[in-house]
Parts: sequence; structure tokens; C-alpha cells
Amino acid sequence: MSVDTQQVPTELEEDELRTLDAHWRAANYLAVGQIYLMANPLLTEPLRPEHVKPRLLGHWGTSPGLNLVHTHLNRVIKARDLDALCIWGPGHGGPAVLANSWLEGTYTETYPDITRDAAGMARLFKQFSFPGGVPSHVAPETPGSIHEGGELGYALSHAYGAALDNPGLVVACVIGDGEAETGPLAASWHSNKFLDPVDDGAVLPILHLNGYKIANPTVLARIPEAELDDLLRGYGHDPIHVTGDDPAAVHRAMAAAMDTALDRIAALQRAAREDGVTDRPRWPVIVLRTPKGWTGPAEVDGLPVEGTWRAHQVPLAAVRDNPEHLRQLETWLRSYRPEELFDEHGAPRPEVLACVPAGTRRLGATPHANGGLLVRELPLPPLEKYAVEVDKPGATLHEPTRVLGDLLEDVMAATAERRDFRLVGPDETASNRLQAVYAASGKAWQAETLDVDEHLDRHGRVMEILSEHTCQGWLEGYLLTGRHGLFSCYEAFVHIVDSMVNQHVKWLRTTRRLPWRAPIASLNYLLTSHVWRQDHNGFSHQDPGFVDHILNKSPEAVRVYFPPDANTLLSVADHALRSRDYVNVIVAGKQPCFDWLSMEEAEVHCARGAGIWEWAGTEDGTREPDVVLACAGDVPTLEVLAAAQLLRRHLPELAVRVVNVVDIARLLPSEEHPHGMNDFEYDGLFTADKPVIFAYHGYPWLIHRLAYRRHGHPHTHVRGYKEIGTTTTPFDMVLSNDLDRYRLVMDVIDRVPGLAVRAAAVRQHMQDVRQRHHVWIREHGTDLPEVADWTWDG
Amino acid sequence: MSVDTQQVPTELEEDELRTLDAHWRAANYLAVGQIYLMANPLLTEPLRPEHVKPRLLGHWGTSPGLNLVHTHLNRVIKARDLDALCIWGPGHGGPAVLANSWLEGTYTETYPDITRDAAGMARLFKQFSFPGGVPSHVAPETPGSIHEGGELGYALSHAYGAALDNPGLVVACVIGDGEAETGPLAASWHSNKFLDPVDDGAVLPILHLNGYKIANPTVLARIPEAELDDLLRGYGHDPIHVTGDDPAAVHRAMAAAMDTALDRIAALQRAAREDGVTDRPRWPVIVLRTPKGWTGPAEVDGLPVEGTWRAHQVPLAAVRDNPEHLRQLETWLRSYRPEELFDEHGAPRPEVLACVPAGTRRLGATPHANGGLLVRELPLPPLEKYAVEVDKPGATLHEPTRVLGDLLEDVMAATAERRDFRLVGPDETASNRLQAVYAASGKAWQAETLDVDEHLDRHGRVMEILSEHTCQGWLEGYLLTGRHGLFSCYEAFVHIVDSMVNQHVKWLRTTRRLPWRAPIASLNYLLTSHVWRQDHNGFSHQDPGFVDHILNKSPEAVRVYFPPDANTLLSVADHALRSRDYVNVIVAGKQPCFDWLSMEEAEVHCARGAGIWEWAGTEDGTREPDVVLACAGDVPTLEVLAAAQLLRRHLPELAVRVVNVVDIARLLPSEEHPHGMNDFEYDGLFTADKPVIFAYHGYPWLIHRLAYRRHGHPHTHVRGYKEIGTTTTPFDMVLSNDLDRYRLVMDVIDRVPGLAVRAAAVRQHMQDVRQRHHVWIREHGTDLPEVADWTWDG
Repeated sequence: MSVDTQQVPTELEEDELRTLDAHWRAANYLAVGQIYLMANPLLTEPLRPEHVKPRLLGHWGTSPGLNLVHTHLNRVIKARDLDALCIWGPGHGGPAVLANSWLEGTYTETYPDITRDAAGMARLFKQFSFPGGVPSHVAPETPGSIHEGGELGYALSHAYGAALDNPGLVVACVIGDGEAETGPLAASWHSNKFLDPVDDGAVLPILHLNGYKIANPTVLARIPEAELDDLLRGYGHDPIHVTGDDPAAVHRAMAAAMDTALDRIAALQRAAREDGVTDRPRWPVIVLRTPKGWTGPAEVDGLPVEGTWRAHQVPLAAVRDNPEHLRQLETWLRSYRPEELFDEHGAPRPEVLACVPAGTRRLGATPHANGGLLVRELPLPPLEKYAVEVDKPGATLHEPTRVLGDLLEDVMAATAERRDFRLVGPDETASNRLQAVYAASGKAWQAETLDVDEHLDRHGRVMEILSEHTCQGWLEGYLLTGRHGLFSCYEAFVHIVDSMVNQHVKWLRTTRRLPWRAPIASLNYLLTSHVWRQDHNGFSHQDPGFVDHILNKSPEAVRVYFPPDANTLLSVADHALRSRDYVNVIVAGKQPCFDWLSMEEAEVHCARGAGIWEWAGTEDGTREPDVVLACAGDVPTLEVLAAAQLLRRHLPELAVRVVNVVDIARLLPSEEHPHGMNDFEYDGLFTADKPVIFAYHGYPWLIHRLAYRRHGHPHTHVRGYKEIGTTTTPFDMVLSNDLDRYRLVMDVIDRVPGLAVRAAAVRQHMQDVRQRHHVWIREHGTDLPEVADWTWDG
Repeated sequence: MSVDTQQVPTELEEDELRTLDAHWRAANYLAVGQIYLMANPLLTEPLRPEHVKPRLLGHWGTSPGLNLVHTHLNRVIKARDLDALCIWGPGHGGPAVLANSWLEGTYTETYPDITRDAAGMARLFKQFSFPGGVPSHVAPETPGSIHEGGELGYALSHAYGAALDNPGLVVACVIGDGEAETGPLAASWHSNKFLDPVDDGAVLPILHLNGYKIANPTVLARIPEAELDDLLRGYGHDPIHVTGDDPAAVHRAMAAAMDTALDRIAALQRAAREDGVTDRPRWPVIVLRTPKGWTGPAEVDGLPVEGTWRAHQVPLAAVRDNPEHLRQLETWLRSYRPEELFDEHGAPRPEVLACVPAGTRRLGATPHANGGLLVRELPLPPLEKYAVEVDKPGATLHEPTRVLGDLLEDVMAATAERRDFRLVGPDETASNRLQAVYAASGKAWQAETLDVDEHLDRHGRVMEILSEHTCQGWLEGYLLTGRHGLFSCYEAFVHIVDSMVNQHVKWLRTTRRLPWRAPIASLNYLLTSHVWRQDHNGFSHQDPGFVDHILNKSPEAVRVYFPPDANTLLSVADHALRSRDYVNVIVAGKQPCFDWLSMEEAEVHCARGAGIWEWAGTEDGTREPDVVLACAGDVPTLEVLAAAQLLRRHLPELAVRVVNVVDIARLLPSEEHPHGMNDFEYDGLFTADKPVIFAYHGYPWLIHRLAYRRHGHPHTHVRGYKEIGTTTTPFDMVLSNDLDRYRLVMDVIDRVPGLAVRAAAVRQHMQDVRQRHHVWIREHGTDLPEVADWTWDG
């Protein structure tokens, strides 16, 4: 690679060293103050027990290291007029990032009552980890943050997501050596094989080895440095080391490391952008080794604390009751010489702020961290272009996801210049039949390419890596910085990111309550290759429970859709892509599926979220139904329509209503979910007293959990996936789980009172037919033509 | 390191090369046959469409590579009389492992109808991926397997789990380059820092780079070999490369690589065991580069297939309809020269079997892969030793998990020689207050140790790494090979392994139906640091939904317990540790908690799973209750008892029943779960018609989903966690989520008909008290003494 990576290391002037150290000391002082103090913030009087909070909560251990990084990021941002964002992986070190935000002024701009003076400092201290105050972590409430760092593992994939399609941005990413042990973090190092040095920005990982987790040494801190270097080079990086515990020496080394790293980044970008170099860059990584709880108490109660795991949270635990602890705390606080750092009003002195950049260059003020400020409407074309023709229901078949692929192709094309839309997935875009998008954008790829490869593209915006964690992290980072996207995933394996989406919904729930946080594009899942069609893979690939997980989360931020055909999928996807601040889950099949609704009908139906399909039942406007057949999901809809057809043939006198549910939260009471129906609406669809046979895509009890308060609930019988499956035919799957059309007819006969005597014979016939299918499938390995070639005769 | 790693590479004799190649060709032939054929297995007649299955399902791409590894493992096992187990990470290559099992005879021993002759071969072929047959993956049904490989990422952690405390065992582990991109796999490379060369066996990772996933190249196949070597060395391994597509050359290289690797392993073990070397070994890793779909069709329909992603599943897709495809299939099958491999009866010829070891040395027959054959009763001491004294309920406080720690210490001590019990957790053993175990066993650690470290131990059986995935994978591998263990985890973050436990429950559901699979020890979770006590961490650490996820899984294999105090925790843990073939989830707090039940009472209560606490209500044996206060979980139990006390004071005429639920599945109907109650029992506890106020630990709708069929369900009102939280006081958490004692009293007043007029005033008083708490907490940052110092006066 022809880049000039050997810059002369920075020699800090004594003046600059002094101001950097002053900034760092100020941040450290403010961090300790937040953990301990509720009064006397400037130590204008001797520290007394009543100045100390009654409950001491927070994480000191990582804070001085984060403060060091922040100080030095300030320096280079200011010196280079850098557009930068920082992901604080050890986000539990909230006191550090809050301290820096207060110092640079963004905290006061965001929360005007936390002024940059003694009174504001007192409030800053007291509110930390205090009821009614702010959380102990870097949180949605923290200016400049897109990453909480509570659940570890996602810092680096968030950083890459932020850097994608932001060519002018440098995303620094602090990775704690604890977090570095997690799987998601370990996988995300390879993100550099997907980062385009031309169209994307840069990520500067800063691996912070302070040696300990909560109670144990960390793996990466306890392997020889040469082995760590091998690892980082194996990840595709060039390591730069900063090691020490002498502040002045570390400041010098850190300044030099930052300059070296940023010079290299600039050179690599220049080479790719100006000289047309296409070698995959070896991006720098900084390895920062400083003591855990650096500058804190060296020993407490005779045990070493600084530089050990004992510094993880609150090093002095009994300050209110133990005079020696109180004395140690005062000594510790005064060691930062607050009188040099803050003026008599409590404002930071100019020297402290000398390194701080201005305006939106400040890390707490970058609009990238408040992506809603940057997000633009996605250019979504009219759906008519992609809609499938439906003259009458069930006359034609389409693969819904393939139809959606055509829409996504045009979204990709329409954002070719703007570059603010990405499709992510674990190597399944084509398997999920969305491959039309490749005509508009290839797959991002910076590693070696062979002639036989297809659709690989240095500048592609389709992202495929066999790591659901990395896909999710990239997309979250991308959305949080103001862009749009879709995650297409096998339904069963989206559980891999259960805990990640958990954190994202928590983030959205909180940001929705913060007026200064502008709404961002929703996180959209397309779950396909679903439970009913795992012909190739069987039981291990069958799990429809992600929806249950999502519906446990804050109702204001979660939406779940089961479009039953191609046009409804288009409508739902269009709605999801336009929406803000949600997690939208769309479950849709990739296999050929009957087209039930025209585009116009689909839009009306999806807007309602649930509705009667008059054409499918016996509705004539005069009769109450004897039974309601309800369905949610493509396969259940097919089985319900087939059951309705059987009923029409075998029990023509029966009044049957067919209700299709697209938006599953409609079943909830309106006070439980914004999309919930009131009882009047619900009874209008499902009746208050007639039997309801509900064929549902997933675990049947979800429907009960949603509808248990309804008048009609005692009469509602749900069929769904009962955790029975293997490698078998599609119809064998519904048979095994009692979701098949014949079973549904039997359910109707079992539940509708006063049926003709003949019904018993019909029931027996259905039972016989089921047995015939069972035997045939085991003998021939295929479904019987009467289901494989079934058609709707309505 | 003073080990002789430079052995002279093996020179294969021509004879051995021929027999190895014959074995490999036979396995390849059988793999193709399984994917395609339902008749004419030996090609004794020209191939016709009707010989071919109507649905072609399976994964060819990885199969020839797996067959190569199996053939060469056979060779070294036989040559060295090796005790070996293999984890097939690319387990979707089921045809390969099934082929080998049939060849070595274990398949016929396990399934006698699949004989080792033409008729058996025909059945072997037809049953594959066929309804009523066997799944397409290496599955529980596959002899010799402990790992499905359907959901990728867990191969290596399973391998390490199997190797722990099996000093004589070598666990080979094939890692596909697709799987290598996942987070869990990436993290698990560092397992070698926890593998004791003295007391544990060895793991030999075989990274199989065939270059492609489903539709994309893989990252590790497309970085320069030097960079890959850096990575593997960074993981602590010494790489050995085998690359090629010429079978003879690859056989020679693979035999040499296997010998080199096993010689190194033996030398490293000898050094540690005999010479007392304590340096962390650099274990070998084999990097095997062979084409995807090797020996399959080079081109199909004019497009390259062998060596590309197109070989992933079924290379020739239209064999029944396309004569050219049929011809290609026949050519492909005949290219293995089946007549040389199988005799006229279809039995493998002696030359083919020359490399196959005998008896339980065969990979399909090793008892390590059927751990139930090896598992011993865990030596569990009588609980009396650890029980806390309870003269009357609520008079004393204990930290339940700390009490459990004393029991675990003795289990650790009692297994010091047997070494068949491990405790795993993501750096939280001490945080979760189980640190008493360190007195019996330290923490496994082979990396650098400093003087300041505590409890690190080269031979320790406590395993702590900050990766829930790795913890889970280790424990699964350990249990599946016949040992015992417990996973202690923060409640919120156990969601990280949602998808892993999914697969484990699926495995158990299947093995429970296989008579030849002996029951294994249950997978036991202790979930602590739970939602109600995240004082330090707040919202990101609050999620009680793992239980909901678990209860979606097969009822026969899942158990969930909410012990309300120390003695009930002991009883539940004892039961879980004795049990087989379950996933047991125990949710218990680590904070001081009132002791409600004596050990004797606890055992009776836990055996019942749910019961009336007469002493807590107003039961006198004569009166029906006016209201039932039900509780599940330690914090809800406290709030319910406090509410009962308030009711006794303010509405003494009210007949109150208190029901505590430990085993949450008791709420299910008996036909839905083996622990479910029948309606008679349920009504006896909860009444059929009285209001039930249910204070539940987690999301309230779970109780509705479990109890919706009960007579009393319409009168049941549930309080629980509503996804509201932050860093705050414990009582503020229950207040915010309406689970507090005062709110419960208000719920009672709102729902019990015919209360005295005075009740309205009591209700208002409760409301006022709640407001007073709210204000106090925000002002002082602590809970009011009336809750912080509350005592039970019963």
C-alpha cells in the first residue's frame, strides 16, 4: 500500500500538555463528583458526610480512560477541524462522558438548568444515578451518544454503521477489554472488509486495556503484546500502542498516537479517493493500556484498588460512615486541584477549555449523534409499479419477497447519489429472493474478489456477513445517524439478536420522551424463510417466537405485521420504510403464494390492520356469522381459505366469516397499544359470542395473551406452531401442528352448536382425509395434488 | 515452549493412500446418494427419473470436506488408539456424517433396519430429508453427534465444553468459514485461555475454508494467508495448512497435518503433565482449503458449480425433468466407482473399511457423544447444612444466592476428584454472591497471572469469560458429554443466548424420543441481579422476558422457578441439579431477602410448586377468602406480604388468602405441561370466582397466557414489570411499575365487591402514601424507612 504511514510523532508543547492535562483532571474531578457528591461541589469547605450521596452508584474504573480519550479527541478535532463521532463502548462509565459534555457546554445547551457554574455542577453531581435524575450509563439522555454500552458487544458494529456513507466522518470507538471478549464484538472486527475508503468514513478503534472486568482479568490484557498484535493484524489493522500510568507521558504518547492514526486514515482515504488505490486498507487501531481506576485511591482498607478490578464501581464504599473513607475521598478529589480548574463561580477556566472544539464539532453536539436532525424522507416510488394484478382473489401466485425485491431495487437506485439506504442480511438476500436489488447496488466487499464472484462491489450498499449481530449493529448505527435500512433474516435466527433489539427498543422508548432527540427511521425487519417452509433445514430452523419477544417491549415503539400476500407485503413495507422511531417486524414468505388482494384493496386492508374478507366467507350483509375463521400469516391464510372452501362445499348452510389480521397488535385493547382496537371494533370483526377459530402463524398462545380481555375470548380457539417440526413437506408441517384446513373444519364442527347431523360425517371424513395425506406424504415424499395444486374457487 | 513440534511429516504408503481414498469416495458416493436417490442405490441399472426423489433437499457443498476430515480422523484414531470426538460445525452437511456412520457400522447398530447392504443403503438414501425419515442436518438422530450445526456459531465452544475434564479425549472441531464469521464462534477461539493441559483434553480446530457461504465468498477465505495466520496466532494457535483439489495430494497433506497436530498435542500435554511446564500451550489448528462441492459437477447449465457457492445445496436441481441433469448425476455418481467400493450385496468392501477404527473408538460410537451413558449422580449434600433457621416467617434476612453459594462450594469440593461439575458465568460469580465456591475451586485461567489476582487457578472449574455465548456453549458441550453444571447470569443479559437455548431445547425434545439416547444432566440457569434490583445500571439491565421465551419451547423439557427466599432457592436448586433432560430456569435475587419458610416448609412448598401461605393471610379454615393475593418472585412476594399486612391493619374484616407460586408452569393446564394443575387444584388455590391480585416478577401478560383457560381468569388482575425503569431506588422501581404494596391494596379495594364505605378512604390514603414515597425518593435518593426497614408483624 503506497501510503505515508510513517509520520513524525507529535511533540506536545509544554503549554498544550498543561491544558490537556487540565482538561483531563477537570473531567476526572467531575466524574468523581458525580459518583459521590450531592453538595459542596467545589470543595469550598471541608468535605462532610452530608455532602455525600446516601447511595453510591456508578462506575469509576473506566472513567479516567474515557476522559483521556475524550480530551485527546477534543485536541485532534480542534486541530484538524475534524467531523467526528465517538462510540463509548464502556458506556457504563457514564460519569466521564457526562463530565465532558458539561465541560464543552453541550450539556447546558441540552439541559439549561445544568448550568456551567457551581450551581449547575451541584445539579450535575446530584442528578447522576439519582432517582428522577439521569442513568449511570452513557444513555439516550447523554448528548453526543448513539450507544448505551449497558449490554456489551455492539460498540464496533455501531461505529461502522455510523461511518457507512459518511465519507467525511471519523468514528472513534472505545472498546473495553471486557467488551472485547464478547462474541458480537469479536465478529465485528471484520467489518473493515466491508468499509469503502471512498464512499464511507473511517473507524478508529481504540482498544482500552485497563486489565480487568468486574472481578477478573481480561483475556486481551493477559496475552503477550506480540500475540495481541498478531490478533489485531489478523483482523486487518495496524496497531499503535499507548501504555503507561504517568499522566504526562501518556498524554504525549496519546497525542502522537492520535496524530499517527489520523494521518494514516487521511493517507489511506487519499490513496483510495485520489489515486484510485483499490487495495484493502490496513486501518490503524490504538491500543491504550492505562490502569483501571487510574488516579483514584491506590489502596482502600489495606487492599490495592487502583489498577485492579476493585476500582470497577465505587472504590470507597462507606464514605458517609467511615471517616477514613471520607478523608480519602477528599484527598482524591483535591488531588485534581479543582481550584486551578474552575473559577470562583464554578465555571471551567479557559485553560481547561483550551482543547475543546466549537459548535457542532464538539462530540456532544455532532448532529450525527442525533440522526433525526439529518434524516431525509426516503424516495419511495408509488406502489402501483410493483403491484401484482389481481382481477379476482386467488387466481395467481407470486413470491411476495421477490415482488418486494423490485421495490427495493428502485429504492436502492433512487438513493444512489444520496447513499442513505442499506439492505443488510446474513448471506440471505438472494435466498430470501430479494436479489433484484443487485441491479441497483452490489454487495459491499473490500476483500479479495475472484472472477466467478457475482455482484460484489467496492461501493455496494447491500451488506451480507454471516453474523446477525454484525448486521444488526451496522443497521442500528446507520439508522441512529440518520439513514434508512432493512434487515432481511431467516425468521428462526433473528432470535440471535433478541438482546440487541431489546436495547434498541429501550433506546427508542427513551428518545421518544426527549424533545431534543429528533425521530429517526425505524428499524425494519423482513423475517422470511419462515417456520412453515423449512423444507431444506427442518426443526432447527423453525421458530416464530421473535414476535412474542418484540411484543413484550414498549408498545409505543414496536409494530408487527403478517402480510398474507404480495400486495399486502408491498403496502406494509412501504409503511414501515416511511415510519419513524419504531421497530417494525414484517413476517412474509418467499414461496409462491396466492394473490388475494389488489393493490388498492391491500392498502385499505393494511391501513385497517385487520378486516373481514367478505368474498372469502358467506357474508351477504344480512346474516350474523355462525363461526369466524380468523387468520394471520400467509400459510394460515391459505389454510383458512381452504377450510372456508371445504365448509362451503360440505356445510353450505353454515354462515362463515373470514377475518384476516395483518397488524397483530390490533388484537390488543386500545389502551394497551396505539394500534389496539376498542371492544366495539373488535366485536364488530370477531363477534362477541360466536366461535372464533384462529389460524395463527406462530405460537398460538400469543393470540390469547393479546386478546384475553375480549368479550369473545372464551370462544376463541387458536391453532399455530406447537414446536413440532422436521425436514418434511409443507403440508406435513401444517398437518403435524394441527393448523391444516381439515383440522380447522373439524374445529368448526366441534365448536358451532346446533349443526346438522351430517356434520359428524363431515368431521369423520376430514379425519380420514388427514390420515390419507399423512400416509401419502410418508410414502411419496410429496404433498398430494389436492393441496399442492389447490385453487380457490370463490 | 520446550516441546518437540517439528515431527517428520507422515509419508503415506500407496496402499494406505488407496484405502483412504476408497473410504472417502465411498462416503462421497453415499452423500450424493442420500441427496438424490430413492431407488437403484448401487446403480446396478442405468439411472432413471423414477430412481430420483421428487424433492431434492440437502447440502452437498460442505459434504466432501467433512468426508475427508472423517476419513482422516478414522486413520489417526485407529493408528493411535485415540479417544476422539468430532464436532461437525457445518452440520448442515448431514449426508456426510450419516454416510460415515453407515460405513463404520454404528448407524446399523443404532437403527437395525438400515442394514449395511443394498437394502439398507436404499433405506439410508430414501429416509434422508424425507417425510418420516431423518433431518437433513447432523441432528440428535445422528450417532456420534452432540451438535446440530443448524444455527451456526457454537461448534468450537461445544468442543471445548466436551474437552473440559476429559484429559484423555481429543475433540476435533470442524469450523466452516461461514460459521467463522459469527460472533459466538469468533469469541470462542479464546477458549484456549481456559483449557487446562493437565486436567482437560485437547481441542483440534479444523478451519475448513471452502470459500463460500450460501451465496457469498467468506471473509476468512478472502484475506491473504499471512493475515489469516496472524489471526490464528493472535487467537493463540499454531496454524498448519492443507490446501488443494487433487485428492491424492490432499490426502497426503491431510495425513501429515493430522499427525503433526496430534504429535504436538501429545507433546504439549506431556510437557504440562510430566515436565510441569506451565506456559500456556500454543495448540495447533488445521486450515483446510478444498473446493466447495469438491468432486461434484464442475459446470451445470453452463455455469461453474464446483468450487463456487452454487454447490451449496443441490447442484443439479432438475434431475427428474431434465435428461442432461440426470445424465450428469449418473456420471457424477459413477465417478466414485461404486463397484470398487461396495460388494455385490452392497456392503462396503474391506479396503473401504481399512481405516475405520473398532468399537467405541468409532466416532459414531463414542460414549462421549451420548453423555447420558457416562453421567453419574451428582454428590449433593443434605440441604439442612445450608438451610437458614426460620423460627417464624420474615424475622431474618439472607441473600439467597449467597446461601446457595455455600451449597455450590460443597458440590465443587465433593467433585474435586471426579471433576464433573462446573460453574460458568460472564464474570459475575462474585457479583452474584456465589463466591464461596472459590474456597473449593478457583477460576480456570491459563493466561498471564499477576500478584494482585485472586482465585485464578490453572485447574479451576469455575469458568468466567465476558461472553454469555461462550459460557453457554461450554456448558452445553460439558453436559452433552455427561457432566453437570450451572450457569449464573444477569437476568437481562441471558437473552443474549435466547437462540442458543432454543437449539438446546430442540435437541432435548428430540433426544427424549430416542430410546438409545440416555438422559443427560439438565442445563441449569440461575438468573439473578434481576429486573427489580438494577440500582447501579438501570433500564438497559432490566428485562425479565427470558422466562417467556423458555415457556414457548417444548413443555416436556422446560422448567421455570421463582423461589421467594433462601431456603426455597436451596430446594429448587437441589431439584434442578438432580434432574435430567430439562432446561431449568431459576430466578432468584442476590439482595437481602426475608426468610419466609423453614427448610422443611420450603421443601414441601417447592414440591407442590404453588401453595397457600396460611400464616400470611387470614385463613382460619372456616372462611372462603374475599380476595386472593398471589405472588411469584422474591420482590413480588415481599410486596404481597406487605400488602396483606396493610389490609389486615386497614380492612381487618377482609378475608385475604396469600398464594405463592414457585413453579410457574403449575399455572398451565395439566394437559399443556407436565407440571400443570388440573382445574380442581387450581380452583382450590385461587378460587373459581374471587378476585385474584397477582404480583408477578416479570411481564404481567405471561400469567394471562398461562392461566387464560381457568375459571377464575376473568377475575385475575396481574401486576408486573411494564418496561419502565432507570437507575433508581428499589422501591421506586416497584412504584413505577405499579407493583408496590400500596397499589396492590388499591387493586384489592377496586375489585372486591361490597367493601365497607371506609375502604374508599383507605384507597385515598394509599394513593397519598405512594405520592409521599415518590416525592421523598426524588428528594433524598433513598427509600423511606417504612419500606427500607419494613418488617413482617405476622
